[in-house]
Amino acid sequence: MARNLLFTIEYDGSGFHGWQIQPNVNTVQGTMEKALSKVFGVPVELDGTSRTDAGVHAIGQRATFSGEFGIPTERIMFAANNMLPGSIHISKVTEVPDRFHARFDAKAKTYRYVIHNTHHRNVFDRNYCWYVGPKLNIAAMKEAAAHFVGTHDFKSCQSTGGPEKHSTVRTISDLQVNQNEEKITIDVTGDGFLYNMVRIIVGTLTEVGLGRIKPDQIEGILQSKDRERAGRTAPPQGLYLVQVYYERKDL
Amino acid sequence: MARNLLFTIEYDGSGFHGWQIQPNVNTVQGTMEKALSKVFGVPVELDGTSRTDAGVHAIGQRATFSGEFGIPTERIMFAANNMLPGSIHISKVTEVPDRFHARFDAKAKTYRYVIHNTHHRNVFDRNYCWYVGPKLNIAAMKEAAAHFVGTHDFKSCQSTGGPEKHSTVRTISDLQVNQNEEKITIDVTGDGFLYNMVRIIVGTLTEVGLGRIKPDQIEGILQSKDRERAGRTAPPQGLYLVQVYYERKDL
Repeated sequence: MARNLLFTIEYDGSGFHGWQIQPNVNTVQGTMEKALSKVFGVPVELDGTSRTDAGVHAIGQRATFSGEFGIPTERIMFAANNMLPGSIHISKVTEVPDRFHARFDAKAKTYRYVIHNTHHRNVFDRNYCWYVGPKLNIAAMKEAAAHFVGTHDFKSCQSTGGPEKHSTVRTISDLQVNQNEEKITIDVTGDGFLYNMVRIIVGTLTEVGLGRIKPDQIEGILQSKDRERAGRTAPPQGLYLVQVYYERKDL
Repeated sequence: MARNLLFTIEYDGSGFHGWQIQPNVNTVQGTMEKALSKVFGVPVELDGTSRTDAGVHAIGQRATFSGEFGIPTERIMFAANNMLPGSIHISKVTEVPDRFHARFDAKAKTYRYVIHNTHHRNVFDRNYCWYVGPKLNIAAMKEAAAHFVGTHDFKSCQSTGGPEKHSTVRTISDLQVNQNEEKITIDVTGDGFLYNMVRIIVGTLTEVGLGRIKPDQIEGILQSKDRERAGRTAPPQGLYLVQVYYERKDL
């Protein structure tokens, strides 16, 4: 009788070619499937919530695995973490009903982007933030952020090359820009995100912070549906998948 | 006419087999010599202050290079950092007199050791601290630390396998244990350190924190000159070479 498990996963994405399994490169999914196959004694295929790109991190990635196996749920986390490299850590394992799917059942996700606004780089966080040298205008970034919130066609904030989507309309329920000394965090929550959408929003907000785009231009950029008018795509290493929300609040 | 340069260097040691150049492995010295040889247009050999082990980090490693080259001193840092990987950063370049030597002229050094005293590991700092799960008694560690300060024979705090030393007497001028929530930092300053001495002192202080060694046993451990009586060698990834001191305060 098949059981269905939901995993919550942290990973340091700097050593991986992203989440999704691909031949001949090191991916989070591939590494996890190999480790979990040993734990369960059967081949494991995971359905992950978000196909994070190379270099992108996760604090709360989710993945489901459905299969027949004997190990009790409460022993899985310890056994699996023992088989995983230090760069991946399972923080929760929950038995979920049949057909529950980590991606299809996700109602919303929160991503965090970390900018270090400094000319003084240090070697220790180069894989964990985006360094921006010139001083950013945080008040302008906060003002611009408000224009992204709501339901919009985000075509101008989508990179080509991602999976085809029927619609480019998405809803951002929250977008916060916070500053703590030289560290700026941008937290964005939405029902779904187009390819590179968070990184393009961050890149656009950064252009606002640099004074190259005015906060009141955001609406026009969205209406134009023109990728060229939005800012550059912020680099992957500042991005963290923080949380995935489901109908059931206990998951 | 030869010029002599003193470099101050930061590095993330997690991807390196230590400072010292060795065949067929990635070392900080080897990586720097390759980059600097391109900048100077002549073969570069560096004399580093400390032979940090594999996985050990530096915020203020020093190294001297003496050679004949044309590039003005003020342009070297930018040019060299452009040639170096993100894991190594030169933070200062100073022209020093002939015969000044980064190691032989060093009067003292400060190392920092970082412990995360928690059962909740996270994937992002696994290469930058030592995880100790059981709660450490900081007051006892501070009391024990005071017994290491001064001039002692540190033979019991020396690993075998390092370079031969004529004397195992060293002077520790300062040893501070500080706690900030789950993060414990141990800062030790001394005129010189035996092989693995800082990591063995940290391992011994941690045994004190765990209640396995009493603070007033430290003196006896030092007097015994017996490596077996001191604590285990703390792992390399928590260790940072912070500062090197010279007679000239401006260096």
